[in-house]
Order: sequence, then structure tokens, then C-alpha cells
Amino acid sequence: MTNKMVERVTNSFESQSMMKTLGARIHKVEKGKVIIEAPILPSSLQQQGYGHAGLTFSIGDSAAGYSALTMLPEDHEVMTAEIKINLLAPADGEMLQAEGCVVKSGKRLVVVTSEIYALKDGQTKLIAIMQGTMIPFPLNP
Amino acid sequence: MTNKMVERVTNSFESQSMMKTLGARIHKVEKGKVIIEAPILPSSLQQQGYGHAGLTFSIGDSAAGYSALTMLPEDHEVMTAEIKINLLAPADGEMLQAEGCVVKSGKRLVVVTSEIYALKDGQTKLIAIMQGTMIPFPLNP
Amino acid sequence: MTNKMVERVTNSFESQSMMKTLGARIHKVEKGKVIIEAPILPSSLQQQGYGHAGLTFSIGDSAAGYSALTMLPEDHEVMTAEIKINLLAPADGEMLQAEGCVVKSGKRLVVVTSEIYALKDGQTKLIAIMQGTMIPFPLNP
Amino acid sequence: MTNKMVERVTNSFESQSMMKTLGARIHKVEKGKVIIEAPILPSSLQQQGYGHAGLTFSIGDSAAGYSALTMLPEDHEVMTAEIKINLLAPADGEMLQAEGCVVKSGKRLVVVTSEIYALKDGQTKLIAIMQGTMIPFPLNP
Repeated sequence: MTNKMVERVTNSFESQSMMKTLGARIHKVEKGKVIIEAPILPSSLQQQGYGHAGLTFSIGDSAAGYSALTMLPEDHEVMTAEIKINLLAPADGEMLQAEGCVVKSGKRLVVVTSEIYALKDGQTKLIAIMQGTMIPFPLNP
Repeated sequence: MTNKMVERVTNSFESQSMMKTLGARIHKVEKGKVIIEAPILPSSLQQQGYGHAGLTFSIGDSAAGYSALTMLPEDHEVMTAEIKINLLAPADGEMLQAEGCVVKSGKRLVVVTSEIYALKDGQTKLIAIMQGTMIPFPLNP
Repeated sequence: MTNKMVERVTNSFESQSMMKTLGARIHKVEKGKVIIEAPILPSSLQQQGYGHAGLTFSIGDSAAGYSALTMLPEDHEVMTAEIKINLLAPADGEMLQAEGCVVKSGKRLVVVTSEIYALKDGQTKLIAIMQGTMIPFPLNP
Repeated sequence: MTNKMVERVTNSFESQSMMKTLGARIHKVEKGKVIIEAPILPSSLQQQGYGHAGLTFSIGDSAAGYSALTMLPEDHEVMTAEIKINLLAPADGEMLQAEGCVVKSGKRLVVVTSEIYALKDGQTKLIAIMQGTMIPFPLNP
């Protein structure tokens, strides 16, 4: 992973106001794998006081998308074509961590997965898994 | 649709801080169908300035979940087991509107869909479709 | 819908040996919509004697794929990138009918849905819904 | 894994006529993991001569379902509530092998994944991934 790649992911990430709203930040960038984390803020909850599925989805989707971006030429961006989430347990704890991975990187499609963990009292628990498709596109076509 | 049902959906919705963060509100509640809308706020954007997929997902998932809730006995709540989203076009405009519908309501599972539209300059455009599964559970088991 | 389009769908369909194995046949071809039907054969069952999910999936996926094909230029084929199925009820009856529809037709992706019905004693019942993504590709690139 | 568990999976599998039609057989049964394999028969092809997505889906879904069954009490069966497949490459080769795994086993739902590989000339290639939900139910309720 070049510094340029980390920079590219970071720049794109920081231009997403939604990530700021959710308090999310990049934790790790490797070729084919990106980890994003976010606190479970008082402003990100569902009706029972757990983290909202929208929070879990948002960081899981971003981690998956940026993992795809690490496989692409420098002048490309990526967007989500489709993605599915299975919620396994409530988003209970101080922090969520989403680990996005590339399963298959092609010219037209990049197939990705994401695993989202909740961190509570020093324990880590898998709370959601995602599987989806990213589409690469050139930035200045 | 009784007033009690509308009240139940409204109360649950208002206890979700994430919905407030996104500026979302309930537009319509019918038996088996709920419409939720949200402005595309400056704080809900992705890197190209469109509404974030997390915004689209959040209101689509909520609309689907509350449509399921309208089919259940009064002492029940609902949670998302899984849901899939296909993104058709950028979330471009002033407002998003998500229409959640019940496809099949069972004792153990409620299968739902959601259609999300962007409103721009008086035009309406379908930007995403969702298909998923909600699980009913008793509030005081 | 030109006769050429019906012919193209029919030719492609008939070259799928799996469709023969399942006894499937094309019921209707329109622009953006294809219906495929198959008997629930004694050789297509699961362990409780209902039609196998693989049967439901196979005709649902084919109907969706051919609905996408009706939107494409003549020298193109289509393949499934991904698809999701929610099973609503057992495949109980004499016949299944899958109705594939195009939701959004783009140059790079075609988003589709499929509804699968079981026919029993003159009654029709929705037993599964599908949502997925087809990729167009030129036949002689 | 007790012999009883292997026997239970085997008995259920052998009562699925669809598995016979596809030439499928059980390769391995462990607690939380089941491998099913099938030749790519001349009767299981799509229009380009590769294995049909319906074949890939059928053994992937069965492997996932039986992996769920290994986690359940003896008097239970399992059915697919929903499942999603991403196709990564054509089903090209002599044989397909599907490895189903349990991600989270609950009382009401079992979340599963499946990876499907094609075997060709002694090489193994990942051609599809699946993610879904199984529902346990008692055999004699």
C-alpha cells in the first residue's frame, strides 16, 4: 500500500459530510481491506437505545467501498451498486468497527464483504455482515 | 388504520435519535405501508455532494420496518433481520421519500420492500429499491 | 416487442439444458417483462415434497435475466451479477410461474425483480420475490 | 459431530429429488459446516455451456441450510427464509463444491454463508458467494 493510496482513501473519506456527522474515522487501509470505526453517538440511536442500523450500514458500506478503491487505478472512484446486510445482534457498546474486504476485483465490478463489530467493555462482538457490489468509474471520463 | 396505530409508529419513530439527526419525518402511515421523508442535508452527503447511501438506507429501512409494525399486535415491536438495497441513481435533489410496503406478514417474519425517490425541482425519480425481512417481537415478553 | 426479440429470447432459452431438465418454458415476452413457467416435477423436489428452492430460483433468475435482455441491443447477452430471493411460502402446486421485470436499464447494469407464483387447484399464490443485477455484454466483442 | 447428526443430514439430503437430478452428494458434515458437491452435468447448463446459476445456487443453498441444521436440536428441520448470491466467475469445470457455514445460530434465525468453487483440471476457483437466513422449525410441532 503506497502512501498515495492511503491519501486517496483519506481525502475521499473526509469529503463525506455523513462520515463527520456519524463521527466515523479511518482506522486502517491495506490493499483490499479497509477498517472504519465510529462511536455510537447519542445522535445515532434507534428506538431501544442501540446504535441505528443506518450507522452500522453507513460504516460497513464505506469500508467495503474503500476496500474496492484500493484495487483500482489512481484516476478512479467507486460507487455502491448494491449491498445486503444481515444484522446479528444489537449495536451495543461504545464503538463500532467495520472491516471491508475485496472478494473479487474485476474491471466492471468489485465484489466486497464487510464485517461490523461492536466494542463494549473491552469485548468485541460481530453484529452484522454485508455482501455487495461496487462499480468502478473514471474520475474524469 | 386506527389513530392508535399512527400514534404507535410516531412514538417509536420519535425515539430514534438517528431520524432527528437526518431530519427525517413520517409522511404517511397506512396498514402495510409507511412513507418517511428526509431533506438531503449538508451533513448527510457523500464525497460527490449527493445524499449518502447511509441516508437512503436509513429512511428506506425505517419505512419498511414501520410498514411491518402496522401489521402486528399492539404490544409488539419489530427489528430488521436483513435487508438489501440496489442503488439506481444518485440521491440528487432537495428531499428523499421512502415508501415501505409489506409483501408478506407472518407470525415469525414479515417480508418487506422499500422504494426510495429523490425530489428535485418538482420532479420525482426512483433512486433505490430495497427488499428485506423484519422480525416481530413482544415488547414485554 | 418485435418478433426478432421474442426469437432471440427463445433461442437463448432453448440452449439452456437446465431449463429442459426443469421442464421450464417461456410463457410471455414483452419489452421489460418476461414470464417463465415450470411444472413442479417429481425430480425437482426438496425433502418435504414441495418444489425445491433451486427450481424457484432458476426460473425466477431466468425470467429476470431475459427481461433485461429485451432492453438491450441485438448483439448483446446478459449475465446475473447478483440476485437475492425471499421465500414466502412453500412451492406447493402443479406449476410455478416467474414474472421478471426491469426496474432500471443502464448501459453497465440492469436492475431487475422477479415474482414467483405457485398455481394449485386454480389458485395463484405469491411464493417468492427476487431483486438483482444483470450485466449486459456484447456477444462478439 | 455425532454419527447421528451426519445421518440426519444425509437422510434429509437423500429425500431431495432435486439433489439427485443435479447429481449432488454430501462431501463433508461438521458442526456448523457442510460441503456439498455436484458434477457440472450436460443437463445442468446455461446458454453458453457453463454450469447454470440454478445449479450453483441449489448446492450453495443446500450446503448453507445443512450447516444450520447441524446446530439445531434433533427434532428440528430448517428452511431458507432468504439468501443472496454474487456470481464471480462462470461455473466452468468438471465439478462444483459448495461450503456452507454458520455465522450466527439463534433460536429464531440462523445466519449462514456459502462459498462455491469450480474444480477444473486440478485447479480450484471461487465462483460464487452467498449470504442468507435459515429458519429452524420443529418437525412435529
